[in-house]
Amino acid sequence: MKAWEKNIRTVDPYVPGEQPVLDDMIKLNTNENPYPPAPGVKEIIEQMSVKDIRLYPDANCSSLVNVLSAYYQLEKDQVFVGVGSDDVLATAFLTFFNSKKPILFPDITYAFYDVWAKLYHIPYERPALDENFRIRREDYYKENGGVVIANPNAPTSICEGLEFIEDILIHNQDVIVIVDEAYVDFGGVSARPLLRKYDNLLITQTFSKSRSMAGARIGYCMGNKRLIQAMNEVKYSINSYTMNQWALQIGVEAVKDDVYFKEGLVKIMRTRQTTANALRELGFDVMDSKTNFLFVTHKHLDCKQLFEYLRTKHIFVRHWDTERISNYLRVSIGTENEMKAFLDETRQFVQMSQQAVSVQ
Amino acid sequence: MKAWEKNIRTVDPYVPGEQPVLDDMIKLNTNENPYPPAPGVKEIIEQMSVKDIRLYPDANCSSLVNVLSAYYQLEKDQVFVGVGSDDVLATAFLTFFNSKKPILFPDITYAFYDVWAKLYHIPYERPALDENFRIRREDYYKENGGVVIANPNAPTSICEGLEFIEDILIHNQDVIVIVDEAYVDFGGVSARPLLRKYDNLLITQTFSKSRSMAGARIGYCMGNKRLIQAMNEVKYSINSYTMNQWALQIGVEAVKDDVYFKEGLVKIMRTRQTTANALRELGFDVMDSKTNFLFVTHKHLDCKQLFEYLRTKHIFVRHWDTERISNYLRVSIGTENEMKAFLDETRQFVQMSQQAVSVQ
Repeated sequence: MKAWEKNIRTVDPYVPGEQPVLDDMIKLNTNENPYPPAPGVKEIIEQMSVKDIRLYPDANCSSLVNVLSAYYQLEKDQVFVGVGSDDVLATAFLTFFNSKKPILFPDITYAFYDVWAKLYHIPYERPALDENFRIRREDYYKENGGVVIANPNAPTSICEGLEFIEDILIHNQDVIVIVDEAYVDFGGVSARPLLRKYDNLLITQTFSKSRSMAGARIGYCMGNKRLIQAMNEVKYSINSYTMNQWALQIGVEAVKDDVYFKEGLVKIMRTRQTTANALRELGFDVMDSKTNFLFVTHKHLDCKQLFEYLRTKHIFVRHWDTERISNYLRVSIGTENEMKAFLDETRQFVQMSQQAVSVQ
Repeated sequence: MKAWEKNIRTVDPYVPGEQPVLDDMIKLNTNENPYPPAPGVKEIIEQMSVKDIRLYPDANCSSLVNVLSAYYQLEKDQVFVGVGSDDVLATAFLTFFNSKKPILFPDITYAFYDVWAKLYHIPYERPALDENFRIRREDYYKENGGVVIANPNAPTSICEGLEFIEDILIHNQDVIVIVDEAYVDFGGVSARPLLRKYDNLLITQTFSKSRSMAGARIGYCMGNKRLIQAMNEVKYSINSYTMNQWALQIGVEAVKDDVYFKEGLVKIMRTRQTTANALRELGFDVMDSKTNFLFVTHKHLDCKQLFEYLRTKHIFVRHWDTERISNYLRVSIGTENEMKAFLDETRQFVQMSQQAVSVQ
């Protein structure tokens, strides 16, 4: 080891999920939206001037902040935007979690929370979900340095109600409570109405799922202006110009077309229902999803084998070798046709497995 | 103060430079390039598919890393890309500067270095430039936690030679030495040839200046693969998908057109020379610039007043109320016409000032 190596920050290298690129693939592994973004987005791109490329973007991202604050009926200084909700959440962790007490988030939840905590040397504890993969509210009543709740939770797909989130807030008025609502648009309940009452609440959302714009890298959060100001001060101390001209322009355009947005949500939710029903008919346990994915398991099937079987058919879903969920799959909701292909192959796998059992 | 406020990270809020938007303005205050990016860039944008928006980008940024490593004849694992060189530098500070000893950088240099050091709680010292605004190499011979040298330096515009940078490296083999080459393409000397010899050297560059793409937010750095790997591990622990689809695609396209790139550099350097000559004729001291800006002062004129006078004419240059440089201006190199307008107004100001003196 060279001398200069000893001061390198050591992290558990986080390996991003597989992003296969095959012409015939059905990609149901990273919760992308199968439908394109609003038609106006394409038009805006074609109209972009080269001048927009040569000049620095607006560091305050005013155009996007304004359209989002108007959309959610908030003040302009209550919205912060970043390079995907990962950027927003990482900035929030760095800004708000500077206590010596541990921050709290569930054992099974978005895989990035403990990565940020480790990176920034934030102590943390992970109370276990109950046997039905629900968050136990009492676990969050103890003294802590902050709370992070994904609602709906991932990869469980379960959404808790407003009363649940308010109970967490009532018991945690001295720390920042982050509610990560990456998936809330697909039928979940947002904590937004609680923003007026709790000035320590920060809600994060993203354009990557419901707005079909994972490739644009746009996330945002909402909170009282003191929180947003503190995050902006940290952001301006890292990189003033995070959002490029393209992201700002197409982000604004996407928010404008609310009818297209909501039609898209309805399509996903309808496909989610038919897919869940079909899976249940095949004997799968399917969690009640308020997201654009299903979290499924099967009492008599090896779901990791199913994951690998589907891979051979160029259908990509998500599996983790993690304790408690190693026989579960997370399946993003694609188009009707994509889900039909997924179900056909899954049915095939179930039949093969049943034959194998009867032969034994 | 509420209880939750006491764990908020306190930073000196960095206020980004003014970005005026006026139809008739001449913007010489943020070192943007007056010429558009390569013609192919516009074509690529028009060809972008909506599919590129809906899917996550490549977390490894392989297309851009590949084109840059080929361009500089480096291995693929020797290049890291980020959201502008600020993102790259901030990631490097977080990754490499974890010593209890102070890192070293000049008192007059890029204003972000001490902001990052404060944000990440990195101790630092700032040896003073000499009376000619040159870096004193001996100041960097002492024990330290890392070294950061902007070369060419900003806002002085002065570039040190390869022998100077190698001397710094020879005296600092146990820490990471960052050479920030944001402006090097405009006639400076890159430390790139030293990469083979010094595995603790990290060189950062940007698309914002020489490649006319400040609005795209693309920066990169080059170093030995152990350094690049460590930065990628930190990056994947903050935000895996930092570069959006647009930035990746236009970045690749820009690097391809090397003739256009170099023609653009020649134009800027020629305009820089004629502008510097004209300013010297007006009695200004003009540093020998290897950047796309001039750093100028005048023995008998109040340069802050000139800055304010130019503002009233919608010509924006940069002035700092900072010790040692408060009678200096930084003037970005615009088009021939823009510099003519700047010189005409400056001449006007000089004449008015001389008349005022003779009246007294």
